[in-house]
Amino acid sequence: MTQLRVCVVGTGRAGMVHAENFRWRVPRAELVAVVDSDAARAAEAAASLDLPHAGFTDLTAALAAGPIDAVVITTPTFTHRDLAVEAARAGVHVFCEKPMALTLAECDDIVAACESARVNLQVGFMRRFDPPFVTAKRDLDAGVVGRPVLVRSLTRGPGLPPAWANDVRRSNGMLAEVNSHDFDTVRWLGASDIVEVNAVAAALKRPDMRDSLPDFYDTAVVTAVLANGAFGVIDGVCPADYGYDARAEVVGSAGVLLVGELRDSASLRYTREGGGVSGHYVSWRERFKLAYELEAAEFVDSVQQGRPPRVGGLDGRAAVAAVLAARDSLALKRSVSVEY
Amino acid sequence: MTQLRVCVVGTGRAGMVHAENFRWRVPRAELVAVVDSDAARAAEAAASLDLPHAGFTDLTAALAAGPIDAVVITTPTFTHRDLAVEAARAGVHVFCEKPMALTLAECDDIVAACESARVNLQVGFMRRFDPPFVTAKRDLDAGVVGRPVLVRSLTRGPGLPPAWANDVRRSNGMLAEVNSHDFDTVRWLGASDIVEVNAVAAALKRPDMRDSLPDFYDTAVVTAVLANGAFGVIDGVCPADYGYDARAEVVGSAGVLLVGELRDSASLRYTREGGGVSGHYVSWRERFKLAYELEAAEFVDSVQQGRPPRVGGLDGRAAVAAVLAARDSLALKRSVSVEY
Amino acid sequence: MTQLRVCVVGTGRAGMVHAENFRWRVPRAELVAVVDSDAARAAEAAASLDLPHAGFTDLTAALAAGPIDAVVITTPTFTHRDLAVEAARAGVHVFCEKPMALTLAECDDIVAACESARVNLQVGFMRRFDPPFVTAKRDLDAGVVGRPVLVRSLTRGPGLPPAWANDVRRSNGMLAEVNSHDFDTVRWLGASDIVEVNAVAAALKRPDMRDSLPDFYDTAVVTAVLANGAFGVIDGVCPADYGYDARAEVVGSAGVLLVGELRDSASLRYTREGGGVSGHYVSWRERFKLAYELEAAEFVDSVQQGRPPRVGGLDGRAAVAAVLAARDSLALKRSVSVEY
Amino acid sequence: MTQLRVCVVGTGRAGMVHAENFRWRVPRAELVAVVDSDAARAAEAAASLDLPHAGFTDLTAALAAGPIDAVVITTPTFTHRDLAVEAARAGVHVFCEKPMALTLAECDDIVAACESARVNLQVGFMRRFDPPFVTAKRDLDAGVVGRPVLVRSLTRGPGLPPAWANDVRRSNGMLAEVNSHDFDTVRWLGASDIVEVNAVAAALKRPDMRDSLPDFYDTAVVTAVLANGAFGVIDGVCPADYGYDARAEVVGSAGVLLVGELRDSASLRYTREGGGVSGHYVSWRERFKLAYELEAAEFVDSVQQGRPPRVGGLDGRAAVAAVLAARDSLALKRSVSVEY
Repeated sequence: MTQLRVCVVGTGRAGMVHAENFRWRVPRAELVAVVDSDAARAAEAAASLDLPHAGFTDLTAALAAGPIDAVVITTPTFTHRDLAVEAARAGVHVFCEKPMALTLAECDDIVAACESARVNLQVGFMRRFDPPFVTAKRDLDAGVVGRPVLVRSLTRGPGLPPAWANDVRRSNGMLAEVNSHDFDTVRWLGASDIVEVNAVAAALKRPDMRDSLPDFYDTAVVTAVLANGAFGVIDGVCPADYGYDARAEVVGSAGVLLVGELRDSASLRYTREGGGVSGHYVSWRERFKLAYELEAAEFVDSVQQGRPPRVGGLDGRAAVAAVLAARDSLALKRSVSVEY
Repeated sequence: MTQLRVCVVGTGRAGMVHAENFRWRVPRAELVAVVDSDAARAAEAAASLDLPHAGFTDLTAALAAGPIDAVVITTPTFTHRDLAVEAARAGVHVFCEKPMALTLAECDDIVAACESARVNLQVGFMRRFDPPFVTAKRDLDAGVVGRPVLVRSLTRGPGLPPAWANDVRRSNGMLAEVNSHDFDTVRWLGASDIVEVNAVAAALKRPDMRDSLPDFYDTAVVTAVLANGAFGVIDGVCPADYGYDARAEVVGSAGVLLVGELRDSASLRYTREGGGVSGHYVSWRERFKLAYELEAAEFVDSVQQGRPPRVGGLDGRAAVAAVLAARDSLALKRSVSVEY
Repeated sequence: MTQLRVCVVGTGRAGMVHAENFRWRVPRAELVAVVDSDAARAAEAAASLDLPHAGFTDLTAALAAGPIDAVVITTPTFTHRDLAVEAARAGVHVFCEKPMALTLAECDDIVAACESARVNLQVGFMRRFDPPFVTAKRDLDAGVVGRPVLVRSLTRGPGLPPAWANDVRRSNGMLAEVNSHDFDTVRWLGASDIVEVNAVAAALKRPDMRDSLPDFYDTAVVTAVLANGAFGVIDGVCPADYGYDARAEVVGSAGVLLVGELRDSASLRYTREGGGVSGHYVSWRERFKLAYELEAAEFVDSVQQGRPPRVGGLDGRAAVAAVLAARDSLALKRSVSVEY
Repeated sequence: MTQLRVCVVGTGRAGMVHAENFRWRVPRAELVAVVDSDAARAAEAAASLDLPHAGFTDLTAALAAGPIDAVVITTPTFTHRDLAVEAARAGVHVFCEKPMALTLAECDDIVAACESARVNLQVGFMRRFDPPFVTAKRDLDAGVVGRPVLVRSLTRGPGLPPAWANDVRRSNGMLAEVNSHDFDTVRWLGASDIVEVNAVAAALKRPDMRDSLPDFYDTAVVTAVLANGAFGVIDGVCPADYGYDARAEVVGSAGVLLVGELRDSASLRYTREGGGVSGHYVSWRERFKLAYELEAAEFVDSVQQGRPPRVGGLDGRAAVAAVLAARDSLALKRSVSVEY
């Protein structure tokens, strides 16, 4: 079977995770190019990936240089629309990191371009491929705990994101850059669209950031109401210092599911001083290592099987819609309906 | 040392937990009377407790019958004020189950009566005595995870409460009857008063209850803002079907604490069909068995040592204040400031 | 109902656990006397227990002083036979700490005296009352994991025992003083008598102890064969430094049961430095607090209900038989059949 | 950098795990051939791996057909010596599954051939690459729990092995085929050679197998003494029915390490009926998925870096020596010294 020839755009942290996966770990795919607007970084990435060329500084050049079947877009959110549309118009399948875009209009442009070009569009909600989350979804679908009543989802992570992502005006802030996953999880595990949100947020970890970015926040809680009546609760803390924490909990009409943990291996130790977990997740790279591989495999499989991917453009768009409503709720200090 | 002579008022489920503890398990205390307005139930309780009399049908009669040093009030919330004030005026120490009362004015009456009579007043927030919660508080006070940024607390329990407690107009509803503990936990572990709340609630488990009680709800989420800037998140589901679930989580500026679990013993089993926890908490009686004993011991100790108890009337009052604000938030569909 | 009047003999650590339980925590029992050959310790114990007298220096005096229904024997093992026989001959029910005695002949004397006097005899295998162990036994009896194939049981505890217990010639050593519980657990959960054992032991923690006690050992492993063909594996380490560790595991023909844990509460914490269990068992007093209470309640209940206790003299004797075979295996460096 | 060209010999379950890893998941390696004496199976394997040829029926043919840098030997144990020696003589690096061979003489032949040919020799103790085991080893080396005093290691797995492996005379039995890993773990974590063993074994799960194979056993316990004085305890049950269970525990002079668990993801569920782990390991393929990938990567890295692998021939030989002593202990019904 032909290998899917993949070009990864963006060689930041997420970009390199994808690039390494498509280079080494995804069956029936081949990494053929990397793109970074910084030529030195592009060259460095290409070298570390054993690619036979020096990397490209824009997608246009990469597309021109040789046969590419698919792009993986990992650049800052405000660039997603243009890159995705360009790729789609070139007849290339699109994998787009989350958040899908800054506005619903941008999401619509991407969806329309992909539909028009008849290429696949997958959005990077890798939690949908993480074994604990997959198991929970399977249990929910099997009715093990009845219908969903309350879905909690949280993301807390160490380290501030890059500068642009801290600027709420350029990125929609932490709720978009970090908690997009939680909006998707609430909708996915809750099996219903989010129709209303209420958000609070503050700069509790890094109040100093407000000196230059008055809208900055690092701690947030969002309450959501789903179309089926269930509630959602999301929280985010970033930077969180203590590790990378991504968990969910679903109260159903007949039970509860607890999804995910903070520890990274089953090694416990006890000494006179106390008990400890030997090692815990300190990065999303470790926590979701397998999920990133599996979502990449799904991208390749869905393209090669000529079917839609399990997480598509409308899923990405729904999360953007909920994020925007939460952003408005922060500004208006009241509940806000989600506009789809 | 003299035994503290205790009269338990109310022989419902919580009443019998307290009565059995003071009868059998609390050092330096002696159960001398039980009161229930239903004479048959009073007699049955007295017999099951090996008491030398038949029980009383009102507190007045019990106080008249013989020397009593302390009362434990476990009757419906709307009766707390009158009973506590009567006991205080009789010079008797007061232990009052949660919620302390229906209104702040009632709380004030109880506090004033006890202060005036120079008797102790303790409120039944037994989670403050539960080992996992105590350990978390100790860790917080020791700065193990830094200052609190986000406190989550939940209570989900099986079975509907008695009829009066489902009637929001008589009881303030589930947020009062079930989640009082969580409002106290958020304030206690968050180390700061709750200043604002936003609540959502619905009848997701028992929509049929709304036929007779239009205000009934069984599922709720409350977001809280604390005076120190930290956030609180509370959820409640009752009836929850799957067991008795009381957990908390504190994100601090330097770490996170996870408090409590659903399982009741360290017995795991694995078979071809899967892995299981052999037994989990199905009732608050099992989950907080030790905490109830320890809060009773604290009541006795604080009286005998002539010092205030570790959980007093102002703690009970603060939870009532937050509950009332959450009730108003439900009605007004917006955030509400807590009036103290 | 009449209270069972209890006299505790021995006011060491185990003695005080029992004395406090019968004094404060066991329904329908009354602590009426304590005995210690050291008059000052007897007096101190009596005072700390709020007893109205100064304690006794021998059982004979206590029995003479007033009505006693039952004794609890917690003195060194080599004294058990004489005390138990004296109590039985006085018509008093006997609770005897483990190990029951040093030899099978001593065990036989105790059993015979109690049978002859028609008094109850219970042996202090409190693990049979510990919730995780009880749950495992219930699951086994219900066939959840099939018939037992392999039973592992371990005890590791901090701190050296008192001097006499380190002297193998006076106490039968750690396998008797510490691992008696494990021999009982293997037989109880394995549902079959131990017929053969093979033991290895060494002084790996405290080799210095061998200077004065050449037979001393602090680490041991015993393999056992049960009459039903199942295997048992026991290990012991004392002193263990890291806490008090008592766990078991049963492989059945259709599953496995894991029994017990090292942690004492469900408080977890994570910081940048790692994850931790906030608190773990540092003493058998904490680990088996509830089990000690429950075995005391069983002692009272079985006497008052006129039925044999759930753990009797033959259970104590069977553990002694297995311990003696393991002791011989150490000396002979080969497998040894258990003589019953 | 050049890709390591790998030929996998044997297309059974372990063979296919390795073949798929070298085909898809191991950086800088390339699967170039598979060998199976059954031509149809070889062809099927080659097809499922997208290889451009039909597979080979013997190693000689594969070596002749084209450039091969390394072989991975996964055939029955009794074939290891000849295959490894042939590969080494062809100047090809050797990865050999466990157990390394049937006798020490065979091990010596393999070691000598690889040394003589200056090719790498790695033995398939993949637990040394499993994150929980690696973490435990790291903690041990860092002195977190002091020096090892007692090491427990167990393997219990579902399903009978292939027929030859049940025949003790052809395979050395379960202690070799299943528990080789445990002998290696005891030696590795105990940081010392095994000098004496005592074993018991029986056919408790499948007594019917003894009709045709009188030496067959499915349940075993081995006690080991290490050169440094520490003890080891190994148990094995196969078939175990309940899943794939591989855990270890190290008691050190200052603490304890618990390594591994039975569950495969952090999904818990609670319903009225009880609590459960959603999914647990049912096969070594799932349990050690990552470990197999990591040991394969180590094989490639060590060859390409011109250094010895982290698990070499002498490690494999030491496990065989301990297994043979355990086999003799079963026959002689006494402790047996390990001959190296």
